Amino acid sequence: MKRTATRLADGRELIYFDESDDAVRQLVDTRDLPSTATATEIRHDVLLDEWVAVASHRQARTHLPPSDECPLCPSTPQRATEVPSSDYDVVVFANRFPSFATDAPGVPPTVDPDVDLVGRRAGVGRCEVVCFTADHATSFSGLTPQRVRTVLEAWIDRTEELSLVPGVEQVFPFENRGAEIGVTLSHPHGQIYGYPFVTPVTRRMLDSARRHRDRTGRDLFDDVLAAEEAAASRIVAQTAEWTAFVPAAARWPFEVHLYPRRRVPDLPALSEGQRAEFPDLYLDVLRRFDRLFGLPMPYIAAWHQAPVRTDRDLAALHLRVFSSRRAPDKLKYLAGSESGMGVFINDIAPERAAELLRQAAP
Amino acid sequence: MKRTATRLADGRELIYFDESDDAVRQLVDTRDLPSTATATEIRHDVLLDEWVAVASHRQARTHLPPSDECPLCPSTPQRATEVPSSDYDVVVFANRFPSFATDAPGVPPTVDPDVDLVGRRAGVGRCEVVCFTADHATSFSGLTPQRVRTVLEAWIDRTEELSLVPGVEQVFPFENRGAEIGVTLSHPHGQIYGYPFVTPVTRRMLDSARRHRDRTGRDLFDDVLAAEEAAASRIVAQTAEWTAFVPAAARWPFEVHLYPRRRVPDLPALSEGQRAEFPDLYLDVLRRFDRLFGLPMPYIAAWHQAPVRTDRDLAALHLRVFSSRRAPDKLKYLAGSESGMGVFINDIAPERAAELLRQAAP
Repeated sequence: MKRTATRLADGRELIYFDESDDAVRQLVDTRDLPSTATATEIRHDVLLDEWVAVASHRQARTHLPPSDECPLCPSTPQRATEVPSSDYDVVVFANRFPSFATDAPGVPPTVDPDVDLVGRRAGVGRCEVVCFTADHATSFSGLTPQRVRTVLEAWIDRTEELSLVPGVEQVFPFENRGAEIGVTLSHPHGQIYGYPFVTPVTRRMLDSARRHRDRTGRDLFDDVLAAEEAAASRIVAQTAEWTAFVPAAARWPFEVHLYPRRRVPDLPALSEGQRAEFPDLYLDVLRRFDRLFGLPMPYIAAWHQAPVRTDRDLAALHLRVFSSRRAPDKLKYLAGSESGMGVFINDIAPERAAELLRQAAP
Repeated sequence: MKRTATRLADGRELIYFDESDDAVRQLVDTRDLPSTATATEIRHDVLLDEWVAVASHRQARTHLPPSDECPLCPSTPQRATEVPSSDYDVVVFANRFPSFATDAPGVPPTVDPDVDLVGRRAGVGRCEVVCFTADHATSFSGLTPQRVRTVLEAWIDRTEELSLVPGVEQVFPFENRGAEIGVTLSHPHGQIYGYPFVTPVTRRMLDSARRHRDRTGRDLFDDVLAAEEAAASRIVAQTAEWTAFVPAAARWPFEVHLYPRRRVPDLPALSEGQRAEFPDLYLDVLRRFDRLFGLPMPYIAAWHQAPVRTDRDLAALHLRVFSSRRAPDKLKYLAGSESGMGVFINDIAPERAAELLRQAAP
């Protein structure tokens, strides 16, 4: 794999990840691109004990452009996009409308009467875009296994680099797929967030893992995977190195967790064997999703990694893929119970969802 | 207020709350309505330490019926609905497709190899529907103050009754408004859930309140309200008994919390003065929501009450109203960061949202 780094016209970093060592990529962004101001701050919600990001500069971000104005397609002689080259395999660049940025302005260090009780900090961090392919019209499930491996290596590269950015405490590669869940650009792409704190969901899992270890001496993630493999009724796909299952207490109509069968803390820690087997397994799961209703499934794919600095021995890398589609013409919405009280009501039994996914074979 | 209770054809409870003591309501449901099976179980997610409800019987529930088939309109000689009378003020009845029910079947008490590690319990509880008006075409914001007071008394009545149902640990009245957030019946109505556990959001707030009390000797909710009133920059509306403000760490583009200025644990504990002032204040807030973009705002309105049995001294009744609409043609979606990691990115500064709501005067 060939890695080529450059800067866009407004100073943002861009990196090509190419499958051929002969690839030659355009490094100069010919646009006259004004630099943007990032004004994120994070505020501590004292009632829920969670940080919330306030990123008011993002209201004006690009929203569902026509496909001939796609900023993620390669550049042409007629039109310069976010990617200077006329072609690419995988490309990663800093988001022009980031939720977190290394140059986020400071907030007053003294107590502000407006936000008494409320901790405030600069929204320091990183937000990157990962383009999976130059082909605007395909999707992740349409990639070749080789391309998925290249994406995986890009995620690993970015996890290593973002872990070194001062202030970044957790690196989160993810993909939102489908206009149904609010995707504003249809070109196949994902994102990577470098958060300035350990996220609430990860904190809760680490707290559970700590209690489990204190009580049993065992690792909670190991025990969950062993229980799912023993039960077998919710397994969707399996290889020597990976197991994909619907969790016993799934929140979403269709939700699959992919665990490496030997626990590692994060993407860079994956072995060569684990890396080699991931593409076929993940493509198998995503294609089952699309076959369920014969429609492209809207989904969120979320990599759970160990925090950069804390509790790395308690965490376990895994990927969660979940969809809000519960029927061809019906979505699950997060309404009063979910959004108000955090209680998910799942209309499809996890065992039934796993059965439907197993049946959705090629 | 006149309260009249009866049973529907399949045995479900229905209660009319009428503003005139002379109201005479039809008590007999003439339909031949087969009884439904409720098959909810709750499962404990060991990683997040939260209960999830699996309610597979709900997949077939009524979905966006045409308005001449609305099950919440009064009955006519030609068509019998869920409400036997030809008119009503406020009516409450048990949901035909409940997420929780008192007759939920038991689950095996022994460890099941399929769900090793995963706690399972019957989904015991109650789910009720609250119709705010017989007028299909209006909305909560179009009610009279007198009608809002009647709805408030119905919520109080139901909180008292559901608190006595064995197994119910928290009572949650809420309203989902707008097809944008998945409302499947457009008739103005809300719901009440009687949960068989204290919800995750409430648990987190109680934990924060407990730590705050241990550290300072003071009540966290009192301190939050005092800080917001002192800051003033996020206050939207205020009366002698109530304050409505955008919280300093708001998660949603438009989010308002309504606190009684003297703390009470739950709706039944509201004083006569607090009850009397609530309707005008709440209608003022909801009408500001609708005026923001000159469009009916999709919103969730969620009553946070003390648990039935535990930590009642730590909790504080308040109502949260929040909308996912961030612009006339744009919704905020819960994508990777929110749904995957629990980190909300708010594109509108809370102070700006409060300013816009203050400006949205009649």
